[in-house]
Amino acid sequence: MIVRRSVPQDQDAVWEILEPVIRAGETYALARDLTRDDALSYWYDPGKRTFVAEEDGRVVGTYYLRANQAGGGDHVCNCGYVTRHDVRGRGVARQMCRHSLSEAAGAGFRAMQYNCVVSTNTGAIRLWKDLGFEIVGTLPGAFHHPTLGDVDAYVMYRRL
Amino acid sequence: MIVRRSVPQDQDAVWEILEPVIRAGETYALARDLTRDDALSYWYDPGKRTFVAEEDGRVVGTYYLRANQAGGGDHVCNCGYVTRHDVRGRGVARQMCRHSLSEAAGAGFRAMQYNCVVSTNTGAIRLWKDLGFEIVGTLPGAFHHPTLGDVDAYVMYRRL
Repeated sequence: MIVRRSVPQDQDAVWEILEPVIRAGETYALARDLTRDDALSYWYDPGKRTFVAEEDGRVVGTYYLRANQAGGGDHVCNCGYVTRHDVRGRGVARQMCRHSLSEAAGAGFRAMQYNCVVSTNTGAIRLWKDLGFEIVGTLPGAFHHPTLGDVDAYVMYRRL
Repeated sequence: MIVRRSVPQDQDAVWEILEPVIRAGETYALARDLTRDDALSYWYDPGKRTFVAEEDGRVVGTYYLRANQAGGGDHVCNCGYVTRHDVRGRGVARQMCRHSLSEAAGAGFRAMQYNCVVSTNTGAIRLWKDLGFEIVGTLPGAFHHPTLGDVDAYVMYRRL
């Protein structure tokens, strides 16, 4: 598997990856009815660098990297990762996260922050902890889960 | 003092309030060299409701209110407040915060979150605590202060 910068030709595959996650509304703070155009505008925002994970010529994951704040906060970055549903559990997210840590450090960022990690997304939390992130904040009831109702969200942080 | 929705005619006064705070770079995560146009575009972003505090016909403070996240996070709002430098210490920020809590609850938000409260901004932290906010997270070294270097930032949260 390789991870590389995304090009416009990836957008069909990226949308196939994003759509089920957005429609489920269980892990990402994005409107469940977001259109393809709005989702891709968000994922490929000019303030973001967007990457894909590719296996045997097929896009199996995608992530973005951006500054989390401007000004005095612009040395801290933020990422979002999504793995294609049919390749889950095979280390795609881990490889994308490792790639993002290296990209971020190379770009001069000194820390990485996840702003809204849904507390019921236990697999992701385990992975981020394994990769050196700590829960530095708990936002009480900050995520409205479609079946579980209001659940906590975590702020996770790692120095680079 | 009254607090009201801002109108385009307020923008000169609002910029006079924002500019010294942006140029100082000590409390807001905004680029210190932000232009007037970019600052006003940020403050009056279509995703925000923008208010001013007015005393004897003069704009002495301004704040915005917005959803902090989309989708499952859209019941939590976020605000930013700035008081005119020559009226500090007279309760303008307190009155704007109280107004925002009421506006937010009226708009259906169920919590308010501040994402990046600079730990050296002790007057603001004292005020937010006094108005019911708690520090729910500490972001280590997440704010580069122009004279103090990297200092912690807090995530503050209050249910409505």
